[in-house]
Amino acid sequence: MRIEIPREFDRLGAVRIYGLQKIYELDAGPGPEAPGSDDAIVRSLPADALYGVQREMAIVVPVRSERLKLIEGVLVGIPNSCLVIVVSNSPREPIDRFFLEQESIANFCRFTHKQVVIVHQKDPAIGAAFAAGGYPELLDDTGCVRNGKAEGMMIGTVLARMMGRRYVGFVDSDNYFPGAVNEYVREYAAGFLINGGAHTLVRISWHSKPKIVEQSLYFAKWGRSSRHCNHALNRLLSHHTGFETEIVKTGNAGEHALTLDLAMSIRYATGYAVEPFHYIDLLEQYGGVFPTEHGDMRHLIRICQIESRNPHFHENKGEDHIADMIRGSLSTVYHSRLCPPSLQQEIDAELRQSGLLKEGETLQPVHTYPSLERLDLAKFTAIAQEVVERRVGAPGSPA
Amino acid sequence: MRIEIPREFDRLGAVRIYGLQKIYELDAGPGPEAPGSDDAIVRSLPADALYGVQREMAIVVPVRSERLKLIEGVLVGIPNSCLVIVVSNSPREPIDRFFLEQESIANFCRFTHKQVVIVHQKDPAIGAAFAAGGYPELLDDTGCVRNGKAEGMMIGTVLARMMGRRYVGFVDSDNYFPGAVNEYVREYAAGFLINGGAHTLVRISWHSKPKIVEQSLYFAKWGRSSRHCNHALNRLLSHHTGFETEIVKTGNAGEHALTLDLAMSIRYATGYAVEPFHYIDLLEQYGGVFPTEHGDMRHLIRICQIESRNPHFHENKGEDHIADMIRGSLSTVYHSRLCPPSLQQEIDAELRQSGLLKEGETLQPVHTYPSLERLDLAKFTAIAQEVVERRVGAPGSPA
Repeated sequence: MRIEIPREFDRLGAVRIYGLQKIYELDAGPGPEAPGSDDAIVRSLPADALYGVQREMAIVVPVRSERLKLIEGVLVGIPNSCLVIVVSNSPREPIDRFFLEQESIANFCRFTHKQVVIVHQKDPAIGAAFAAGGYPELLDDTGCVRNGKAEGMMIGTVLARMMGRRYVGFVDSDNYFPGAVNEYVREYAAGFLINGGAHTLVRISWHSKPKIVEQSLYFAKWGRSSRHCNHALNRLLSHHTGFETEIVKTGNAGEHALTLDLAMSIRYATGYAVEPFHYIDLLEQYGGVFPTEHGDMRHLIRICQIESRNPHFHENKGEDHIADMIRGSLSTVYHSRLCPPSLQQEIDAELRQSGLLKEGETLQPVHTYPSLERLDLAKFTAIAQEVVERRVGAPGSPA
Repeated sequence: MRIEIPREFDRLGAVRIYGLQKIYELDAGPGPEAPGSDDAIVRSLPADALYGVQREMAIVVPVRSERLKLIEGVLVGIPNSCLVIVVSNSPREPIDRFFLEQESIANFCRFTHKQVVIVHQKDPAIGAAFAAGGYPELLDDTGCVRNGKAEGMMIGTVLARMMGRRYVGFVDSDNYFPGAVNEYVREYAAGFLINGGAHTLVRISWHSKPKIVEQSLYFAKWGRSSRHCNHALNRLLSHHTGFETEIVKTGNAGEHALTLDLAMSIRYATGYAVEPFHYIDLLEQYGGVFPTEHGDMRHLIRICQIESRNPHFHENKGEDHIADMIRGSLSTVYHSRLCPPSLQQEIDAELRQSGLLKEGETLQPVHTYPSLERLDLAKFTAIAQEVVERRVGAPGSPA
């Protein structure tokens, strides 16, 4: 992989947000180049180094009633070096879709020797493990993990930690292009290679998203939701740095990866707010704006933004989805302790103007979960281990 | 890359056509797996082995007035290990599009240290080189190479031979997905790795081709043209083997690669017939049906067909394009010395029924070029070397 060095960064306290990095080659070759052939602008990351990172990486794939063909395509795209953790919240009645997923993935793993762990979000053992670990916030009245993609991502994160991985990345299960999935994972590895450090967040900005416009395809660069979300985050940042900026391009990047140290220390929002809330939480904790209640400021938090080369081509989720995304992501900014009244007014006006907030409605705060640091991993593991041992695809295990 | 072993093959004389092979993983990891983990059904091809093949491979990209963004995307997808040969037939007036292409590619190579040779199909030096090499068939009245994609591919093939490569592969310049281009090139390498030998042809069957149907996307498996072309080739094969078959799935596969020994020995058809004519020519020369005038039957000709995993997403060329493709590909079968009268009647009826052949029209034979074996490579090189030395992107060369 050949990737541009970031041209700039914006800093707030211990948080550095790097400018978008462009990809020049998906595959720059196997090993180091001749000395001097690398230059200061673009770096070649040899395949061997990327494999090294991938071996320490878990890729979490949240699934909910996705078509099996799509899930298989996503697995085809994830490099074999990574551990895959599928967290399914598919219904088990009237048809047991989770069973079908397990069977299909087990069959796939039989041919590929891929390491895949598949768990159900509502598995009582997973719920019991969170309870035993002292993290009941994630559970509903029945003792199972709550519904939601963010909650599934949190399960995946803790399992990745339990299984000793250093990095965790997320890939959606509704992607039509295995080649794009493959690119995202390579870019996660590239981000960690370039930035090093224990507290790095890598976020992907899609090159484009093909849309059907008047019977032909149009390669849109920014979705409506991204535009709103990035603008609000940039305005927030500008307010505190005193310099207007457009640095944030990945406010609601579903494709992102974190070092596990970072993933275990941040707070999580539910629903569509999960991704933009990463920015908010890091700025609140490490921005140095609230000196008495911040995180460990000796950490250097790096947010690395990479522009993928493949268009992003996923299932169409419809207009409601977009409206919810916009409200969810703007709510994280609006209700942040960092948000000045002027920006709150601006967000409010914008939502009303575009009809996303009706007369008499107010923007609801999003629900958040505390950091996973408070989870006792040993106690969690004592129970969850059994679920993981039912995993499919490990070499030699009966599928 | 992890790939299925072919389940079957059909043979005619020295030609073996292998059944379609499925891809299980785009990236199976860097090196050999633990012994015993590979099984008889699916083979893991380590990245190192694929790089080894790619270093001996040239990828030819025929270009004609393509948008620069698309060309750049294709270059992003081609692995750095390969030599790239861009053969452009873009107009030089009123805007010198070839100049823009050169400039844009030179700029790209400055960042990537990619080895790219770019030539213009109408470069008088290229024409003169073919004349000097004793291959005037390719030239028009002005002494330049004729128009046509097949002719551009032949230039690319000879340049690849001149530059000492062992394999040559073709990639279209209008592909929207760098990830798909990357996959094709890896699959070419996989095909050569699996089959070895000096006379191997690797052809890609697209996983699917997204189409806009009633404002949403439909992932079509077979285009109309592929269906007609594969059916005719299978009927031809069945006639001679005595067994009905559906083995041919890649009759007009634009994505294909050949060993240079094979590429230099076959005949070429013009226009849309170039790809299906590979089958026809190989069956005519090596099928053993015409014992007195065949090629060297000690050669074992292997045709390897691989099903790519990414959908194929290219510029829409319109209905005329499809009609021409169908006529061109069926003409290669119809006018083959191998084609029995019954199949000729069938093809004729099919074309008339679907309106592709009007009352009074007959299916015209396609123009073909003799094998490039008769080209004196030393004499060709003496002139063409100068064109290649103007190449862009070679490390250290002024771009």
